[in-house]
Amino acid sequence: VFQAAAGAKVFPAETASLLIGAVAISMLLSPLLLVAIDRLLLPRWANRGATQLEEISEQQDAPVIIAGFGRYGQIIGRMLTAQGLAATVLDHDADMIEAARSFGYKVFYGDASRLDLLRTAGAQTAKILVVAVDDKEQSLAIIDLAREHFPHLELVVRARDVTHWNQLRDRGVLRVERELFESSLRSARTVLEVLGYAPHEARRQAMRFRRHNVQLFEKMYEHRQDRARMIAVAKQGRQQLEEQMAQERAEAQRRRGENEARAPGWDR
Amino acid sequence: VFQAAAGAKVFPAETASLLIGAVAISMLLSPLLLVAIDRLLLPRWANRGATQLEEISEQQDAPVIIAGFGRYGQIIGRMLTAQGLAATVLDHDADMIEAARSFGYKVFYGDASRLDLLRTAGAQTAKILVVAVDDKEQSLAIIDLAREHFPHLELVVRARDVTHWNQLRDRGVLRVERELFESSLRSARTVLEVLGYAPHEARRQAMRFRRHNVQLFEKMYEHRQDRARMIAVAKQGRQQLEEQMAQERAEAQRRRGENEARAPGWDR
Repeated sequence: VFQAAAGAKVFPAETASLLIGAVAISMLLSPLLLVAIDRLLLPRWANRGATQLEEISEQQDAPVIIAGFGRYGQIIGRMLTAQGLAATVLDHDADMIEAARSFGYKVFYGDASRLDLLRTAGAQTAKILVVAVDDKEQSLAIIDLAREHFPHLELVVRARDVTHWNQLRDRGVLRVERELFESSLRSARTVLEVLGYAPHEARRQAMRFRRHNVQLFEKMYEHRQDRARMIAVAKQGRQQLEEQMAQERAEAQRRRGENEARAPGWDR
Repeated sequence: VFQAAAGAKVFPAETASLLIGAVAISMLLSPLLLVAIDRLLLPRWANRGATQLEEISEQQDAPVIIAGFGRYGQIIGRMLTAQGLAATVLDHDADMIEAARSFGYKVFYGDASRLDLLRTAGAQTAKILVVAVDDKEQSLAIIDLAREHFPHLELVVRARDVTHWNQLRDRGVLRVERELFESSLRSARTVLEVLGYAPHEARRQAMRFRRHNVQLFEKMYEHRQDRARMIAVAKQGRQQLEEQMAQERAEAQRRRGENEARAPGWDR
């Protein structure tokens, strides 16, 4: 446009190239500006509540610290409160904190992967640190920090998946629950019940599967560096369980048949 | 640079402004190109496996259909297999399917919120549909579809949170587990044990809290349209539990004192 205008002598060539330069700069800047708005400003707006929340600053001394007060941490906190036990709760999600506070919970604002905040939360005098955050990286960051600076703390941790579980085991953390495991076992029990299992039998089978699965996790951990071997161990473990259960079902069937033969007509 | 070069007569002003224009265009294009790569190409590469997977096409007739074979659905599927029970598994995440297949699972590729695929999976003859997908909207879409076209199906569902739980209740779905609830209760039991509770006592307290919490959910559901009332009900329920538990602890303490008074020196 400017070149055409310069050609038509609307303004001299120097002005045209100056204008082109200006346009070039604005063309260069506008996407950068958009990126900057995206990266820098929007998160600030989104976290505006956060900047208004005050970080934990008064020294706490409860025996339990809970990092992360989402769906997982809340249940733990509430169960402790019901027992009359004190816990200091830290979360760095402003929305979560406001929701929790509206329900009457005392939750401190702060990032538990920061040494100073963890110290203010009472890490030096507490007995237990519950790591209930949902993000794996943040979970490991908190744990590494705690193990370095507060090695006396007992860690009770929420794990996301096998990889996270293995990373926790690498760090010697043993009080770990896989976050979806227990509820999925409950659903499995329900399926068995709908299919006709008696509730106690469904429960027994679930407990049994649970034990087997936990043992399998330990075995798979030994081969965590070798994916092919890990898969082989998993397949083998599953097969063993299936065969064992099939045998037991056949045995139970046989016994039922015998009992019926022994007491003919008893319940006919 | 070009202007300075033009000033130094390295090339004429027209060439300089032409070059500036070219640079301007490339400056404009390169961020757009990056955005395009990000938005258009990368997802395609990531989903390349998906386009290669064949959708479920052969009619299935297992008594159980599992929609979603992530962490939740896998445990249910494996427990059923261990019982010798057949289940048809559907997932529409190509990576998940490939991972599951590498571990030896038979998983069909398909979106369970599509009527034709649900029918091919055997919805007309199955007894149970397990909805184990992690996305709330997809979960509700599958459930609405199933209730409309296969009303005989018993639904066993994974719920994400209170809102989702309420939406399921709105649809009359009662066999629901909150996905993190049971594992968080396990972690809470562990905390109690580390604090000195006997394992059976920690378990008893967790079971009690569980019962109370499930009842509270039912009560809160009645007030789901009125947030203030819902919060009041939640607070009140919690307070009741705390008072009750405190009373019981005082009672237990009193009884211990009496026993000690009755049998002085017995265990001293």
